[in-house]
Amino acid sequence: MNCPFCTNEIKNSVFWESDNFMALYNIAPILPGHSLIISKKHLISVLDLSDNLLSEMMLFAKRVTGVLLEAYQSDSFNWSVQDNDVAGQTVSHLHLHIVPRLKGDMTEPGDWYMKISDNDKEILDSNQRPKISQKQMKEIVAKLKCIVENRSIR
Amino acid sequence: MNCPFCTNEIKNSVFWESDNFMALYNIAPILPGHSLIISKKHLISVLDLSDNLLSEMMLFAKRVTGVLLEAYQSDSFNWSVQDNDVAGQTVSHLHLHIVPRLKGDMTEPGDWYMKISDNDKEILDSNQRPKISQKQMKEIVAKLKCIVENRSIR
Repeated sequence: MNCPFCTNEIKNSVFWESDNFMALYNIAPILPGHSLIISKKHLISVLDLSDNLLSEMMLFAKRVTGVLLEAYQSDSFNWSVQDNDVAGQTVSHLHLHIVPRLKGDMTEPGDWYMKISDNDKEILDSNQRPKISQKQMKEIVAKLKCIVENRSIR
Repeated sequence: MNCPFCTNEIKNSVFWESDNFMALYNIAPILPGHSLIISKKHLISVLDLSDNLLSEMMLFAKRVTGVLLEAYQSDSFNWSVQDNDVAGQTVSHLHLHIVPRLKGDMTEPGDWYMKISDNDKEILDSNQRPKISQKQMKEIVAKLKCIVENRSIR
């Protein structure tokens, strides 16, 4: 199986986990903060999730969104799922995009759509989209982990 | 309050309800089957939902998606939330887009992004996007209600 979300390297991008899901920072973010929720198990569709697992994923997504809004000083965000390749999913492993938004970050607020679409095609192996460096990834993941930690203490 | 999702007329578009959410057919669908999950209460953000309500919404969304996939003979779909106006939300009442997808329905699978964005700006009062007629809405809602009913019997 050749799934980029099932490699060991992906763990360098992970800043939080629940029992069955991981939150990871996108290596080629469309905007600062662009992260993904993925299942630990290799599944393709959110419809493959039991009710319990879908609830776990979305409650985890809500908490992850809180962390990202704090980290990127935002109060707005996009959630997006492309379920199956016909729907634009190009990494065949279920994932929810979370993109924190700031006023004026794109010419039109709806432009994130196109960007995610482009991004999804090239998510882990892009020669066209700017990828962050390993050093940047390490710093961002450390910063996000720190916020997770602080929020769990509060 | 001038919220188009809090009018009596919206009920003509509703084909299923859970305790706290409604599934309605979009009056100006970007593709056949384009529907919305909205809260019955006027809320803006999915972050305004308690854990229980967010779970209820997403489990309901999963069931509604099953109905739409059956109705439109699809196995692919998009889910999308634009949370807050800065994120592209133009009807300030929380809603999740569900769009069933068919192979070749758009030039590029990711094109739904732009369409939803355009659509969201004009959702209930569009002079530009084609709106379905009251008669069409009545027929579609009746068809979807029928599938809901049949699935509950199975």
